Amino acid sequence: METHELLSELTRLLGADAVASGESINPDDLHDESLHQRSVTPLAVLRPRSTADVQAIARFASQHGLALTPRGSGTGLSGGATPVNGGLVVSFSKMNHVLSIDEGDHVAVVQPGITLRELDEALKGHGLRYPVYPGELSGSLGGNVNTNAGGMRAVRHGVTRQHILGLEMVLMDGTVVRSGGPVVKSSSGYDLTQLVVGSEGTLALVTEVTLKLSPQLEHAATVLAPFSSVQEVTTVVPRIVSSGLEPAILEYLDVLTMASVTNAAGLELGVDAAVAQQTLAYLIIVLETRTQAQLEGDIEALGELLDGAGALDVYVLPSHSATALIEARERAFWNAKAAGAHEIIDVVVPRSKVPNFIERAQEMALAHESFLVGCGHVGDGNVHFSLYQPDDERRAALLHELFAYAVSLGGAISGEHGIGMDKQADFLALSDPLLIDLQRQIKKVFDPRGLLNPYRLLDERPSP
Amino acid sequence: METHELLSELTRLLGADAVASGESINPDDLHDESLHQRSVTPLAVLRPRSTADVQAIARFASQHGLALTPRGSGTGLSGGATPVNGGLVVSFSKMNHVLSIDEGDHVAVVQPGITLRELDEALKGHGLRYPVYPGELSGSLGGNVNTNAGGMRAVRHGVTRQHILGLEMVLMDGTVVRSGGPVVKSSSGYDLTQLVVGSEGTLALVTEVTLKLSPQLEHAATVLAPFSSVQEVTTVVPRIVSSGLEPAILEYLDVLTMASVTNAAGLELGVDAAVAQQTLAYLIIVLETRTQAQLEGDIEALGELLDGAGALDVYVLPSHSATALIEARERAFWNAKAAGAHEIIDVVVPRSKVPNFIERAQEMALAHESFLVGCGHVGDGNVHFSLYQPDDERRAALLHELFAYAVSLGGAISGEHGIGMDKQADFLALSDPLLIDLQRQIKKVFDPRGLLNPYRLLDERPSP
Repeated sequence: METHELLSELTRLLGADAVASGESINPDDLHDESLHQRSVTPLAVLRPRSTADVQAIARFASQHGLALTPRGSGTGLSGGATPVNGGLVVSFSKMNHVLSIDEGDHVAVVQPGITLRELDEALKGHGLRYPVYPGELSGSLGGNVNTNAGGMRAVRHGVTRQHILGLEMVLMDGTVVRSGGPVVKSSSGYDLTQLVVGSEGTLALVTEVTLKLSPQLEHAATVLAPFSSVQEVTTVVPRIVSSGLEPAILEYLDVLTMASVTNAAGLELGVDAAVAQQTLAYLIIVLETRTQAQLEGDIEALGELLDGAGALDVYVLPSHSATALIEARERAFWNAKAAGAHEIIDVVVPRSKVPNFIERAQEMALAHESFLVGCGHVGDGNVHFSLYQPDDERRAALLHELFAYAVSLGGAISGEHGIGMDKQADFLALSDPLLIDLQRQIKKVFDPRGLLNPYRLLDERPSP
Repeated sequence: METHELLSELTRLLGADAVASGESINPDDLHDESLHQRSVTPLAVLRPRSTADVQAIARFASQHGLALTPRGSGTGLSGGATPVNGGLVVSFSKMNHVLSIDEGDHVAVVQPGITLRELDEALKGHGLRYPVYPGELSGSLGGNVNTNAGGMRAVRHGVTRQHILGLEMVLMDGTVVRSGGPVVKSSSGYDLTQLVVGSEGTLALVTEVTLKLSPQLEHAATVLAPFSSVQEVTTVVPRIVSSGLEPAILEYLDVLTMASVTNAAGLELGVDAAVAQQTLAYLIIVLETRTQAQLEGDIEALGELLDGAGALDVYVLPSHSATALIEARERAFWNAKAAGAHEIIDVVVPRSKVPNFIERAQEMALAHESFLVGCGHVGDGNVHFSLYQPDDERRAALLHELFAYAVSLGGAISGEHGIGMDKQADFLALSDPLLIDLQRQIKKVFDPRGLLNPYRLLDERPSP
């Protein structure tokens, strides 16, 4: 079938306003936020309004052997949802509704195109929240599901995976299946929900998500502790986790990241000048409690723990500074991008191995005449580095060493960003081939012809 | 190959002490705790000592086309791990070691045959615990992984699934794969760990489990609240969950279950006689906190909440009574079994639907001249009923109605016991055939010939 025939057929199926092609494609729909942009020209960008639309799209793509790339709001960082030349893009931007919020069950059912900001707004007034904050409120729920997004609050609440109770999904043959449901436990067959979470859009088109919500805790405090070394910061972390204080956020920033974060936001944290001079790293701890009395007790206990662990000082931030700092930290990626970082990584290692990893990583960077600046969800062992090395080969060599070292410590290449296209080569090289083979066979069960989000994660064919 | 040749080959592979057959089989290895016993004669019961032994067994079973049934300590309740006539049983009783405990990472690596009691003992002195208590401390970790066991503490800590970070597993072709690892998050490929958790031994032979542990909280209180109806109890539950008190246990017992539990344990809870006369149901709430001050504040807040919700009284139990009550509650199944219950069910429904489910279930039981007595992990919507109805057909009809109603409410047939053989027919009848087909295709990826734990869950062939 000719291109124009394919497009008319799509228009007939979905309506003219749901089909963009050629010049009418919004350039924003052609990339994600990966630092490695690829110039691509898909056949069309489609905007379904319903599950039935998505079924029609899947059938059409299968019938014509077209690549199909599902897409949320394009905030991914690893080329996991970028279009394919000549393929179809399914943008879920019009499937962004809250279908239900249940205050008794702490469950919401939403469409995948809803952004975290829209969800947050919708939950206000219900005393509930979706506690996963991957740091980019414009990110879509569907994207979060498919990358198993994490973020600063995962240390207490867990990552996306732990909050997805059920999915409706369209398979490539156009059928719809529903897995899980509004219950927090089930031992009734294989958990296909958990299989699809983190599958980077390669198994099924998620059309509805059942979320587990949490009660909103009313009292919160943000504590800032400067240390004279990154190692001291990361060494205190396991002690905080063991204390039972259950921090909502446990984040480290090296001094350069903190400077870029506070400068970009025009933020003054009131750290004593003499202290600031000795500081090489900061720990940010957010405590959340049910009562003010508990909050005060917890702050005191945390302060003692930090004092005893070598903190240069302990600051309880005023709430406006605290909010500004957390928001500014969430924009650390944009600062790194603006500063010209060549790569962003988010390896995960066992929490207690973070000091080893950071120390060794800096040595590796030095050997490759490269520069690493970082912060991280250190309670989870999730280390974020911005890597500065313009030479592609040297950068690739350093990245491979960093990934290999993380894997050798029992960790993984990506804690929350996903593999996508950017990390595929290292992922495949560093994984057990048997494990990859099992995953590829599972992929075949869902998508025998390899049309759904091809050329990334497990699929090493070169993209056309 | 003749039987005696098969047995000599197994003896040659594993050593004589690892192979039991005929009269030398321990009868305890031939059943689980399901109320429906099947008389079976496996070819042999094997006790591997290592992953290499398990690989040899898998290769042997594949080579000779023999059914292979993995088995923990046989405490399952649904015929999920019972042997097959002429097949091989793999008992993990000798693979019961703790391989490592990491206090900084809150991670333990254990073999699947370890019991929860042995694990609990091993963790003492490390300030850590594995917080999933499915109520039977003689149960094995491997069994817990394969049924995705839950229990009373799941309301706060989650079920087994949320505590399994990684697995080593042997596939039916004898290969070994490792999924996950000692990290709490990863977005690096499909999560095969989560796929195998809850798969009832049908996908792979789990040979090593990496567990997420929690810090031990030092202060605890057990609160008992009698109510004049089950509905009142179940209606207050969503309010407690919303309060942010995060109870470790939130359990309801109807008055008959409470009587059988306290009588069996010779327990006197000190409930006022006038109150006891009006009581039809009890709520047990366990609070756990980091400090005594927080505990006292939480008890007060909980008391006010219960008072306002119609509790006839509120008792904070002395610690010896509290421990005895929780232990006695964990033995409720044995009391029901001793009392001649004909079936045990553990349906799960959305938390707010528990009152509807219980009320309707009692009407259904009445219509079938049957008797339901119950308790449940009501914070999770997990309702446990003992069903008394000696007639097989009537019982089957009632069970199907109960399961269908739970599913219609958005729930599932089993919240934690699994499907096994006992609930297979209802599970297959009430599931979306497309979802079953997907699961069967996944099963084929792992076990193309259907030799691993056959004739249950998805496999409806009649057992030989």
